[in-house]
Amino acid sequence: MSTPTKVTPISGFPEFLPAERLLELQFLDVIREVFELHGFAPLETRAVEPVERLLGKGGDADKEIYGVTRLAGETSVKDAALGLHFDLTVPFARYVLENAGKLAFPFRRYQIQKVWRGERPQEGRFREFTQADIDVVDVGELAPHFEAEMPLVIAEAFARLPIGEFRIQVNNRKIPEGFYLGIGLSDVAGTLRIVDKLDKIGPQKVTALLLEAGATAQQAEQALALAAISSTDLSFVDAVRALGVEHPTLDVGLDALAAVITAGLAQAPGVLVADLKIARGLDYYTGTVYETQLVGSEAWGSVCSGGRYDSLASDGRTTYPGVGISIGLTRLVHLLVTRRGLTATRSTPAAVLVAVNDEDSRDASRDVAAALRARGIPCEIAPSAARFGKQIRYADRRGIPFVWFPGAAGAGDQVKDIRSGEQVEADAASWQCPEADLRPGVTTR
Amino acid sequence: MSTPTKVTPISGFPEFLPAERLLELQFLDVIREVFELHGFAPLETRAVEPVERLLGKGGDADKEIYGVTRLAGETSVKDAALGLHFDLTVPFARYVLENAGKLAFPFRRYQIQKVWRGERPQEGRFREFTQADIDVVDVGELAPHFEAEMPLVIAEAFARLPIGEFRIQVNNRKIPEGFYLGIGLSDVAGTLRIVDKLDKIGPQKVTALLLEAGATAQQAEQALALAAISSTDLSFVDAVRALGVEHPTLDVGLDALAAVITAGLAQAPGVLVADLKIARGLDYYTGTVYETQLVGSEAWGSVCSGGRYDSLASDGRTTYPGVGISIGLTRLVHLLVTRRGLTATRSTPAAVLVAVNDEDSRDASRDVAAALRARGIPCEIAPSAARFGKQIRYADRRGIPFVWFPGAAGAGDQVKDIRSGEQVEADAASWQCPEADLRPGVTTR
Repeated sequence: MSTPTKVTPISGFPEFLPAERLLELQFLDVIREVFELHGFAPLETRAVEPVERLLGKGGDADKEIYGVTRLAGETSVKDAALGLHFDLTVPFARYVLENAGKLAFPFRRYQIQKVWRGERPQEGRFREFTQADIDVVDVGELAPHFEAEMPLVIAEAFARLPIGEFRIQVNNRKIPEGFYLGIGLSDVAGTLRIVDKLDKIGPQKVTALLLEAGATAQQAEQALALAAISSTDLSFVDAVRALGVEHPTLDVGLDALAAVITAGLAQAPGVLVADLKIARGLDYYTGTVYETQLVGSEAWGSVCSGGRYDSLASDGRTTYPGVGISIGLTRLVHLLVTRRGLTATRSTPAAVLVAVNDEDSRDASRDVAAALRARGIPCEIAPSAARFGKQIRYADRRGIPFVWFPGAAGAGDQVKDIRSGEQVEADAASWQCPEADLRPGVTTR
Repeated sequence: MSTPTKVTPISGFPEFLPAERLLELQFLDVIREVFELHGFAPLETRAVEPVERLLGKGGDADKEIYGVTRLAGETSVKDAALGLHFDLTVPFARYVLENAGKLAFPFRRYQIQKVWRGERPQEGRFREFTQADIDVVDVGELAPHFEAEMPLVIAEAFARLPIGEFRIQVNNRKIPEGFYLGIGLSDVAGTLRIVDKLDKIGPQKVTALLLEAGATAQQAEQALALAAISSTDLSFVDAVRALGVEHPTLDVGLDALAAVITAGLAQAPGVLVADLKIARGLDYYTGTVYETQLVGSEAWGSVCSGGRYDSLASDGRTTYPGVGISIGLTRLVHLLVTRRGLTATRSTPAAVLVAVNDEDSRDASRDVAAALRARGIPCEIAPSAARFGKQIRYADRRGIPFVWFPGAAGAGDQVKDIRSGEQVEADAASWQCPEADLRPGVTTR
C-alpha cells in the first residue's frame, strides 16, 4: 500500500486548526443552547437531494450544485441523479412534505449542518460550510408573530457571542413589490434583482441598469428613493408614504414590517433595522427577509440571513408556509479568526495535565485523572515519564493551565498553575478547578 | 417556480424524526463529553478528498466511493477528481500530514462527522452515516499504552449510554501473522481475509476456502484453532502456546495484546475480551484491532471498531503512527430505535409551554418565557390564543410536561404538570423545573 506524499488544501474547503475548531464549537454550543431554550427541535437531513428538487430553488443554484455519483456504480443501479444540498431550507421543506403525517404543527426545528456550493471560492466564500438554521412551518397559514421571533432568537444568540455589535436588517418583499407596481414597474423580480446590487455597484450603475430594463428616469429615481429608506424605529413608514405611492400590496408589506420592528423595539432595542434595500437572492422568499451585519465589519456582508417562504413546501393540495433564518457559521468564525484574530485559549479541552513520575507509576496518574474526570474536569495524562520540565512544556504548548504531580512515596499530590508558577498541595477528590479554566475561553492572538 | 410534488426517501440515506434525533443527540452529547474529559481536541475535516487518496486505503473502498463533481463546471476548471470520504481515519491522516508543523504531538483528536459509502443498503447498513472517532498519532513512535486507552475511553462512554452490556473484542494482527508464518502459511493477508468470514460462513466453508488457497488440512485446522481462542483474562496466551507454534512476530503480538487486556482488567473488568478471530476489513491496520458488540444483540455486528495503523500517515520521510476507534453512531442509534424501541421522552427540547390568554397579552407570555429561559429552562410560547384545552393538547402532542398560565388581570401565574394534572401557583423568576424534566430523557415505545 503506497501513500501519496503530496497533501494540499482544496480551494474553498476550509479546515480549522484545533484551537480554531474549539472556538467554532463554543459558537455552536451557544447557538444550539439558545435555539433549544426557544423550543426548536433538532433535525438533520441527508446531505443529498434529487438534483431536480435542487434545481430552480435557489436562483442560480443550477450553477452551484455538486452532483454525487458512485464511482463504481453497476449499470443496473437505478439511483436518481443526486446532488449535495446547497442550503438547509430546501431539504427541510422536502422533509416536512415527506413526514407531514408524523410532525406536530406549527413545527419548529433547528438544523446545524454542512452545505455545499460549487461557487468560485474567494475570501469568506466557501464551497463547503456549516449553516445553523431555525425555521417554523405551519399548515395552510403561518401566524405573523413568527416573523418577529426569528431575528429576535438570533439577537439573543449573537448577544452571547464575542462578535461585538450587530444589526439585523429587515425588509418585506411586499413593500418593493407593491411600490414597483404602484409606480408602473410590472417586472417586480427583475427590478428587485437590479436594486439588490446597490451595495455592490452603487446608485449610478443601478439607475443605468433600470433604464436599460425599460424603466423611466422617474421610476428609477423612485425605486432608488425607496431603497435608501432605513430606520431603527417606525419612521420608515412615513418616509415611504412621503414618496406618494399607493398600492394595496405596499400597505400589507408596511404593516407586516412595522409589526416586526415594533417587536424588536420592545425586546432588543437598536438591533433590528427596517432597511428597504434588502432583497435576498433566493427566489423562494415571499414576505419578510433578513440580513445581518457586524458593526464595523459591514464589508464582510451578511452573516445571518433568511425570510418567509409561503410556497416552498407544497404537495399540490396542502401548503406549508414557513419562515426561517440561517447563520453562516463557517463564514462568521473564519472572518473572526482571520480578521479579528479570535481563537480559543487552548488547543485542547484538557484543563489539567497529570504528570507521570515514571512508567511504573502510570496507574497512579490514571487514578488521579479518573478522580478529576469523575468531577467533570477534563484532563490528559502525560504521554511519557519524561523530565518534569518536558512534561510542563507539553502542557504549555497546548495552553493547558494546570499540571498535576502525583505524590511519590507517600507524599501528597501537588498542582501547579503553569501561568503563575504557583504550586499547591491538592487532592484529586476535592480540588476545585477555577470555573474560568474548566473550558477553553475566547482570546485574541 | 414549481415544486415537484413527489417526495420519497432515498435508500441508504436515513433521516430521523425529531424524537429520534433528540435521542441521537443525547448519545452524541455523552460521547463528546467523555472524549473531552479525556483531552481529545475536536476536529472536522472537509467532506471531500482527492479520489486517488481514497483509493486503496479501505480494502474494497474503490467500490464504495461517491464521486463529487460540479454539475455546471466550466471547462476551464482544474479541480482534481474528488470523492466523499468513507471514513474519518484516512482524512485525519491526510490532515496530520498537511498540518504537522502546527500540531503538538502526540496529537489527540476526536471527530464526529458524516461519512458516505456507496454500498448496497441493507438494514443497519447505510450509505450516509455519522461516525464518532478518537485517535492519537505521534511522530515516529507511538507509545503502546495508547492502545489500551482507546477501548477504555469507549467503555466509559458506553457505560453512560442506555445500551446495556457490551463487549469490546481486541486482537493484535501480529498474532495471526506470526502464527500463520509459524505454520508455514506465507499469504498472511489472504489467510486473514478468509478467516475473517468465520462468523458469516462458519468453519466448514472457511476450511474449504483455506484448502482452496493452498493450505494443508493441518494448517487450516490450526488457523481455525487460533481463531477459536477467546478470553476475558490472560489465559488466551497459554491457549495459543498450547498450539505449539513459534514465531517472533507471534511473541510480539501476544505481549501487546496481554498489555491491553491487563489494563482492561484493572480499569473496566469484563469489558475487554481477547478474541483472536477479530481481523477488521481495512488494510491499514498493523497491530491492535477492536470490535464491539452489544450483549444480546451480537447479530447486529460491531458498533465500534478500530485499531492501530503504523504507516497510514507518511510523507516519505516522517511517519506518524496512530491508533484510533470509531463509534458507528447512526447504525447504533438506528438499531436501538427499531429493535429495542428506544426514543426520547418528547419531540422538542421545550420543558414548558407558556400559554397565551389572548393575542393582546402575547407580550406577557413572552416575558414569562424570557424569565424561564434566563434561568436555563427551555420553553415555547403557544402559537395561538386558542382555548386552553387546545393549548394543553399542543403540549401533550409534543410530550412537553408543563403548561404555564400567565395570570390574567392581576392574578398570579400558575403552572400545570399535564402528566399528573397537578396545578400550582408559580413565579417565573423562581420556579424550579424538576431536574429530570429539564432535558428530554430516554424511554421505550
